[in-house]
Amino acid sequence: MLVADIETPALLVDADALDRNIGTMAEALPGARLRPHVKAHKCTSLARRQAAAGHLQFTCATIRECEGMAAAGLGADLLLANEVLDARRLGNLAAAGARITVAVDSTETIEAAAAGGVSEVLIDVNVGLPRCGCAPQLAGRLADLARQRGLVVRGVMGYEGHVVGIEEVGERAARCRDSMELLMAAHADVGGELVSAGGTGTYALNTWANEIQAGSYALMDTAYGRLGLPFEQAAFVLATVISDSDGWAVANAGLKAFAMDKGNPELTGGGKVMFCSDEHVTFKPARMVGERAWLIPAHIDPTMACHECLYLFSGDRVVDVWPIDLRGW
Amino acid sequence: MLVADIETPALLVDADALDRNIGTMAEALPGARLRPHVKAHKCTSLARRQAAAGHLQFTCATIRECEGMAAAGLGADLLLANEVLDARRLGNLAAAGARITVAVDSTETIEAAAAGGVSEVLIDVNVGLPRCGCAPQLAGRLADLARQRGLVVRGVMGYEGHVVGIEEVGERAARCRDSMELLMAAHADVGGELVSAGGTGTYALNTWANEIQAGSYALMDTAYGRLGLPFEQAAFVLATVISDSDGWAVANAGLKAFAMDKGNPELTGGGKVMFCSDEHVTFKPARMVGERAWLIPAHIDPTMACHECLYLFSGDRVVDVWPIDLRGW
Repeated sequence: MLVADIETPALLVDADALDRNIGTMAEALPGARLRPHVKAHKCTSLARRQAAAGHLQFTCATIRECEGMAAAGLGADLLLANEVLDARRLGNLAAAGARITVAVDSTETIEAAAAGGVSEVLIDVNVGLPRCGCAPQLAGRLADLARQRGLVVRGVMGYEGHVVGIEEVGERAARCRDSMELLMAAHADVGGELVSAGGTGTYALNTWANEIQAGSYALMDTAYGRLGLPFEQAAFVLATVISDSDGWAVANAGLKAFAMDKGNPELTGGGKVMFCSDEHVTFKPARMVGERAWLIPAHIDPTMACHECLYLFSGDRVVDVWPIDLRGW
Repeated sequence: MLVADIETPALLVDADALDRNIGTMAEALPGARLRPHVKAHKCTSLARRQAAAGHLQFTCATIRECEGMAAAGLGADLLLANEVLDARRLGNLAAAGARITVAVDSTETIEAAAAGGVSEVLIDVNVGLPRCGCAPQLAGRLADLARQRGLVVRGVMGYEGHVVGIEEVGERAARCRDSMELLMAAHADVGGELVSAGGTGTYALNTWANEIQAGSYALMDTAYGRLGLPFEQAAFVLATVISDSDGWAVANAGLKAFAMDKGNPELTGGGKVMFCSDEHVTFKPARMVGERAWLIPAHIDPTMACHECLYLFSGDRVVDVWPIDLRGW
């Protein structure tokens, strides 16, 4: 099948760029130094490529992601880097042989892990992002409680999500250090072998964590594209111009094909997106009806969740079709 | 099953509010005066409720929506209110007994309809929204071309999408009139029995079109909720507080459960959403871990496309689970 034959709208991934991105990261953070986050692609076929590059530990954001990864034979060491109040589905995975570790940041989440049959946890520490994670000074006490409940505390995690997107690298590095100092202090109280943190924006700056939870590096987006990282844009939404006028062109991919939380997608090869509607993107300058438009998502993670499958291509040929099989909850 | 037992995140629809919304609209625009747009819910079970209220004609935005509606036995009169350059899948539906009409706005889309085996078209006219639709003065010429190609021209459509969301009703009415004057002029050149236009924001103001393509009225969202329309909020994303702190709460629904093109979701019962992440919403004030949060999407159409199913509830009971079966393309 040729790229030219793909029915649009469609999600496309450049196989060669993907391989280079995975290779670049595996060289920087080999093996267990990287725990790839599958929330950024939601695709077990892609995770298999990351495993082939030496990363056998994975990070997940949902129970469904853990279930899908285990079913795909990639359950050797899955971290659910998120809090859950009902861990029974995770317990079932552990009982079936997957290694499951879940983040906890409260009495309730510790009790849920124990009740659900998950035996390993990380203490999730708030390092500055107003989201999950306990206050750093409470981490030791939660670890004690978890151990009292019979859980193995593997260490700490703390995601510097408020830092990973800072464009100026000096500030990004400085604020990453601030966050990791909080995490290391918590780790001193908690113990355990893992200090899990980081993302694509800090993978090279975060020298405190001993595993980095980056995910977006494999496919990239316009937001991370502004940071000067050594990763190429590998994911695109392919659309077809279905209507034109003197002033603009309209292609057949819209709000149901792109996540919009970080703004409009961008066109490859120039041009300016005016706005997106449910099934349309309107952009300038005008193009001929039937021409293809290649669009780069502003935020890769939720864009992946919009699509049932991706077309893996090399040059002008489709080399595989991968289901986005970790969607939903 | 009780609402309290639903695993979160989940999409919930209030069955009673839905029924009232459908009833209110069916009273205002009975039978063929409304051609409900299925892009707003992507759910054939919900469309069946609209059919039961007397609307046997439907509007679709994608070929997949047409296929799903026909497969569900709702293919008596389907308008694809969108341009396509390959109409063969639509032609297959027509050959199998569905009535399919497709929008055309160019030589290319007319040729595609004819080549694909679709025999009925509407001339899509640009009435002010910079998207699809021919210039009004070209509509008659396109109708002539379509008839030369053996197509039946059922009339015109022209979506005043730049008008439907205007909050001040006087301005909304005035600009609706401006748009519809363009459409009626085009209709005078085109002929045919249908003048198809409108949306939830103009359903009561657009007295020119003889069928209105409203869809959002059934479920509503915060954007349409600001317009003072007689429709209730019927769709919610249910989430669970999984982490709290002194200053905020975090619930387990995020960018993969909400479309964000019109901004953050809103909390029922007060509180302020601070931001959404892939699988989280952070909001104030803090709430206890385990509490449920009910969130109203800012834009219903692409939010529906984020979910595999919806839970239809009445009071505290789940009365049905409907697949969102028209997703994808």
